[in-house]
Amino acid sequence: MTPELTRDDVSMMILSAKKQSGMSWEGLAEEIGMSPVWTHAASTGMAAMPKEKAELLGQKFNLSADAIELLQEPPSKDWNRDVPTDPCIYRLYEICGVYGPTFKALVHEKFGDGIMSAIDFDMHVDRVEHPKGDRVKVTMTGKFLAYNTW
Amino acid sequence: MTPELTRDDVSMMILSAKKQSGMSWEGLAEEIGMSPVWTHAASTGMAAMPKEKAELLGQKFNLSADAIELLQEPPSKDWNRDVPTDPCIYRLYEICGVYGPTFKALVHEKFGDGIMSAIDFDMHVDRVEHPKGDRVKVTMTGKFLAYNTW
Amino acid sequence: MTPELTRDDVSMMILSAKKQSGMSWEGLAEEIGMSPVWTHAASTGMAAMPKEKAELLGQKFNLSADAIELLQEPPSKDWNRDVPTDPCIYRLYEICGVYGPTFKALVHEKFGDGIMSAIDFDMHVDRVEHPKGDRVKVTMTGKFLAYNTW
Amino acid sequence: MTPELTRDDVSMMILSAKKQSGMSWEGLAEEIGMSPVWTHAASTGMAAMPKEKAELLGQKFNLSADAIELLQEPPSKDWNRDVPTDPCIYRLYEICGVYGPTFKALVHEKFGDGIMSAIDFDMHVDRVEHPKGDRVKVTMTGKFLAYNTW
Amino acid sequence: MTPELTRDDVSMMILSAKKQSGMSWEGLAEEIGMSPVWTHAASTGMAAMPKEKAELLGQKFNLSADAIELLQEPPSKDWNRDVPTDPCIYRLYEICGVYGPTFKALVHEKFGDGIMSAIDFDMHVDRVEHPKGDRVKVTMTGKFLAYNTW
Amino acid sequence: MTPELTRDDVSMMILSAKKQSGMSWEGLAEEIGMSPVWTHAASTGMAAMPKEKAELLGQKFNLSADAIELLQEPPSKDWNRDVPTDPCIYRLYEICGVYGPTFKALVHEKFGDGIMSAIDFDMHVDRVEHPKGDRVKVTMTGKFLAYNTW
Amino acid sequence: MTPELTRDDVSMMILSAKKQSGMSWEGLAEEIGMSPVWTHAASTGMAAMPKEKAELLGQKFNLSADAIELLQEPPSKDWNRDVPTDPCIYRLYEICGVYGPTFKALVHEKFGDGIMSAIDFDMHVDRVEHPKGDRVKVTMTGKFLAYNTW
Amino acid sequence: MTPELTRDDVSMMILSAKKQSGMSWEGLAEEIGMSPVWTHAASTGMAAMPKEKAELLGQKFNLSADAIELLQEPPSKDWNRDVPTDPCIYRLYEICGVYGPTFKALVHEKFGDGIMSAIDFDMHVDRVEHPKGDRVKVTMTGKFLAYNTW
Amino acid sequence: MTPELTRDDVSMMILSAKKQSGMSWEGLAEEIGMSPVWTHAASTGMAAMPKEKAELLGQKFNLSADAIELLQEPPSKDWNRDVPTDPCIYRLYEICGVYGPTFKALVHEKFGDGIMSAIDFDMHVDRVEHPKGDRVKVTMTGKFLAYNTW
Amino acid sequence: MTPELTRDDVSMMILSAKKQSGMSWEGLAEEIGMSPVWTHAASTGMAAMPKEKAELLGQKFNLSADAIELLQEPPSKDWNRDVPTDPCIYRLYEICGVYGPTFKALVHEKFGDGIMSAIDFDMHVDRVEHPKGDRVKVTMTGKFLAYNTW
Repeated sequence: MTPELTRDDVSMMILSAKKQSGMSWEGLAEEIGMSPVWTHAASTGMAAMPKEKAELLGQKFNLSADAIELLQEPPSKDWNRDVPTDPCIYRLYEICGVYGPTFKALVHEKFGDGIMSAIDFDMHVDRVEHPKGDRVKVTMTGKFLAYNTW
Repeated sequence: MTPELTRDDVSMMILSAKKQSGMSWEGLAEEIGMSPVWTHAASTGMAAMPKEKAELLGQKFNLSADAIELLQEPPSKDWNRDVPTDPCIYRLYEICGVYGPTFKALVHEKFGDGIMSAIDFDMHVDRVEHPKGDRVKVTMTGKFLAYNTW
Repeated sequence: MTPELTRDDVSMMILSAKKQSGMSWEGLAEEIGMSPVWTHAASTGMAAMPKEKAELLGQKFNLSADAIELLQEPPSKDWNRDVPTDPCIYRLYEICGVYGPTFKALVHEKFGDGIMSAIDFDMHVDRVEHPKGDRVKVTMTGKFLAYNTW
Repeated sequence: MTPELTRDDVSMMILSAKKQSGMSWEGLAEEIGMSPVWTHAASTGMAAMPKEKAELLGQKFNLSADAIELLQEPPSKDWNRDVPTDPCIYRLYEICGVYGPTFKALVHEKFGDGIMSAIDFDMHVDRVEHPKGDRVKVTMTGKFLAYNTW
Repeated sequence: MTPELTRDDVSMMILSAKKQSGMSWEGLAEEIGMSPVWTHAASTGMAAMPKEKAELLGQKFNLSADAIELLQEPPSKDWNRDVPTDPCIYRLYEICGVYGPTFKALVHEKFGDGIMSAIDFDMHVDRVEHPKGDRVKVTMTGKFLAYNTW
Repeated sequence: MTPELTRDDVSMMILSAKKQSGMSWEGLAEEIGMSPVWTHAASTGMAAMPKEKAELLGQKFNLSADAIELLQEPPSKDWNRDVPTDPCIYRLYEICGVYGPTFKALVHEKFGDGIMSAIDFDMHVDRVEHPKGDRVKVTMTGKFLAYNTW
Repeated sequence: MTPELTRDDVSMMILSAKKQSGMSWEGLAEEIGMSPVWTHAASTGMAAMPKEKAELLGQKFNLSADAIELLQEPPSKDWNRDVPTDPCIYRLYEICGVYGPTFKALVHEKFGDGIMSAIDFDMHVDRVEHPKGDRVKVTMTGKFLAYNTW
Repeated sequence: MTPELTRDDVSMMILSAKKQSGMSWEGLAEEIGMSPVWTHAASTGMAAMPKEKAELLGQKFNLSADAIELLQEPPSKDWNRDVPTDPCIYRLYEICGVYGPTFKALVHEKFGDGIMSAIDFDMHVDRVEHPKGDRVKVTMTGKFLAYNTW
Repeated sequence: MTPELTRDDVSMMILSAKKQSGMSWEGLAEEIGMSPVWTHAASTGMAAMPKEKAELLGQKFNLSADAIELLQEPPSKDWNRDVPTDPCIYRLYEICGVYGPTFKALVHEKFGDGIMSAIDFDMHVDRVEHPKGDRVKVTMTGKFLAYNTW
Repeated sequence: MTPELTRDDVSMMILSAKKQSGMSWEGLAEEIGMSPVWTHAASTGMAAMPKEKAELLGQKFNLSADAIELLQEPPSKDWNRDVPTDPCIYRLYEICGVYGPTFKALVHEKFGDGIMSAIDFDMHVDRVEHPKGDRVKVTMTGKFLAYNTW
């Protein structure tokens, strides 16, 4: 195995191959039988792929055995601790900032002391038609985790 | 009008009255004919209330005319620029951090260059039953805004 | 209910009553049938108490009904996002800093992609005798949470 | 000696050789007669190796004499002053944040004014079976150091 | 397509070609039938170009097909979260700092609760003659977006 | 003179009196013969008032001689060095961030090395009717200041 | 015991009583048989006092029993994580910054991998006569702590 | 003179040559007739060397004329404004944090308003034998500088 | 002595008395025989006053004996580590930022390795007439301090 | 024109040529008929050069036509928003911090509401002989800019 191959390299290989193929994330997701959100996250180093999915993607895009193996390792999911400035991503943080305490109040009202898991979690992004202009729809579900007492 | 009355005072009056009444946010929301997320946000200074809703809430909780007027003014929606540490709210930010670039890629794939509005926006928090443990479900929709060219 | 009573007030009442009583955290924990770590955390606003425990503590220290009720509400578990400087607490962070990547590598080796939960979690602090000077022993267990794929 | 060889280079050589060998950290630790936590930390530049251990590792992985010497030098143990965002490591910091003051209170109750050493220190990470899902167990002991008075 | 070509590369190609051509931003803007502000922003990676404009610019400066395609993709509009120090740019931020609350008060007075869009937005920078020294004139218009209630 | 009277006190007196009077900023500005932007800034401590304007405002709102004198002193124009989070003000900063380098390039193209003054400066905020939704219009002019050479 | 008495209160009582008594820190230190550095630190909340010293100080300055007890509790030794700006204190940090890596190199050369303890530590500040201007002399000793291997 | 030679290059040349020679800092210091602290600082870019010392070191380690000249230029003594995390260096900062105000109080008591110079300054690091474990001893003296009045 | 009197209180007393007296800083400085810069700094807690000057000021403004004593104590000269935003003060920092490296280069060219003292230092602010608009003139002198070698 | 030539490259060319020529900044300044402060700033990318000066410098140091052209373009005058740590530069910031509010008070006393320009500005650094040690003298003048009212 070439030691120099990194997870970032593999992400860039996938992005480049996807561009050449002309596929969309939605199309790619369908081909490997997963959701578009997860497919993008796993392709760009934010999730480990199960063996079967890594191999499907590897065949599709002609990845080396090393690259396919790297896709299955738990990546370092580092993200920007400072609120990002790209306007499209920033709006998500603004929503967390403005409605975060509301989210907490409603979770506690419905479940008691605990949190929505960000690990046992799924997310979807869809386009919803609307007469005054189409809307982006984000749907998330996460398992409720109650605090342990001991 | 007493100049000393602030929006924070009104928020505290509502929280205290709600506690005494034993109502939930869901119950209160139903009484004023709005969603629980918006009701909590508007009650705690993160949204301006339309006149009719402010008066309904004012009657319900016996608020003064000044308080009812303050509820209708555009508040300063300041939020914590640093990622909060309360675990329940933090997980929302972690989701933005881990899946933010994915969100951006899918919005651009489905709509082109632009953003999901955080102003022409709505959000819901629900409890979904699940055999392996109930789940928190968050649903958001925001109008897609395309970048102007000029 | 007096609206001015805050969770911080209740924490201070407990600290003051505990001091007057001359009890240790270990002693207090034994009286309410819980561990010392949880007892301290729940007494200082870092955990919600089950009804029965809140009432036991309330009787013990003569707390008002409002205070006992507040102890059962999910608190805002805010902590210092900047590494604290008190030397006793700082050393814990230094351990996370120096051995954090090691912790991650071993968790992934033993379990795959996922995390140790900080919610379904317990912790103990003990004194261990040692010929070259007694040692502080910290033991934590947290449920392993595997990442969802969807 | 080639002046360009750095400690980071040696860490990368070990990681690459370990990958090729198919060994786990646990297996490697056993071969050099040390614990997995220390073995990982010392292999990735967070601890100096005693001569004998460096040579064992060097033989195992065919390291040069310079690399074996570098493993014995006190490294610069720099870590991220800002709380990391990788979810697996973040949870450790959250535990320090939420339970840090509790840790301090119990250390002082059991020992008086002083700290748990992060230098005269050891740590273990284990998998514990549990009917509701296996748990990660972290055990640390550190010498208690009492403050000097003079 | 060469995978290594980045949006930054394309920006640098345009800046270099523009320098060689001796054109001003105003002149270039006129040639592609857009405003100077938008032309500069889109040439330096702060806006996606419509197909027709990208092709006009590409012909003008002899850009490759890949470069022309990249100009049409939604870029990552990252900007410096810390107030910049270059004196010419800093003054814009000082104006936002000193007159920002005034801007908010007047927007709310004229429109109610909502914001001036930074997406459905345009901006012009002009030179205005003045007997005591010519002045820089900045004109912006952005669509007013009212907060949704739900 | 009462030493305890601060500029913040005077700002609050004006805000309270304006509310009681039911006047808008536009109306108040007209009465003292200044623009709305300047009137708001000077009323809230971001500009010193000429004697005549301070007295007009003082008569209008029945301010004390001390308050009228304070309005004429150069205030400390402190503003938030961190980008504010209130969405209405934030968008102004986002515009500076995204278009700041463009502004610099065009100022240098039209004037040479120098800046737009934020001191010899004026600003207006207007509502502009538009078939697809009214727009906020911001107009600023600032004297161009060329760098000295010596 | 009055619950409102804090360690800060006791520090202020001591500073005030010391001022009234006209004593220097050196004089006070001599009276309780300790060094001036430790005496100042323990009087201002940066060290716990042994019972005997707390009582001596208490008698000297007429402190209450509660205050004397508080002096014996391990304080929260919080300090400013950001480098302080007072020029007299800043120079100490500048010395750490400029000569810190030198200190590390020499400690490792003389002792191996480990640190100088800041807990089992003492410090003295003296005036040394010098023909070109008297000098401040700072002397510190701390126990060397070698890293554990396990 | 080769323009590419930087002060960092020279530092690395010295570190590499010293390693090859097997000398300690103490030994090297003795050879050039200076203290170990200053020798390390000047060799790693934190002090300018007098011509004679630079030439001695240059002969010893076979440095080029350019390197010897660079050693005599005033370097940029940049250091980490954020408190470093390497445990050995961190402890020095912790000492400044915990005992900094004490240092200030004693300097003012002994000298009046002013500071200990960090420029007209010297420092030594020694090993002191001790039955309970050897100690690191740090000694600093700096000229007292009284504030000017004018 | 009233323990509650702080240096800030004394600063406020002086500012208030000066306002009532209608004196300028220049006038006050002349009366106590010092420069305006030093007089303002010492009156607002940034310098200790010699006994004679404190008494002159005390007589002038009718200060209590305690206040006069406090003026003679070395104050904590804390200043804002973050660059201030008040435009008048900010420009000074911008000058340091833009011309700081130039200042360093010229000091080293004229004096060798060392610094301009900020302690043995004086400063004057004057108005200089100029046909194109009067100018602010700032003059500083500080003793050159050469680095010690040892 | 080679597109890769940057302003930093030109600065390095000048620094290297100046070193080879053995000239001081003072000498170079004299040759091009400008002050040493401006000459250094303009040579290191902190000011645009008038055509005539750029050509003089270019001839002197044999710079290419491209380099001479780059010297005339308005540079990006970025500086370190965080207070620098090099002791020689830091002292300038400490002076701004300690005497900044004094500067503001005296400017307002002498001129009214406004600032000293940092653009229409000049600065000199001189050596002044003094029996107790020579002094660094810094002189700045900047045009007073009064705030506009509108």
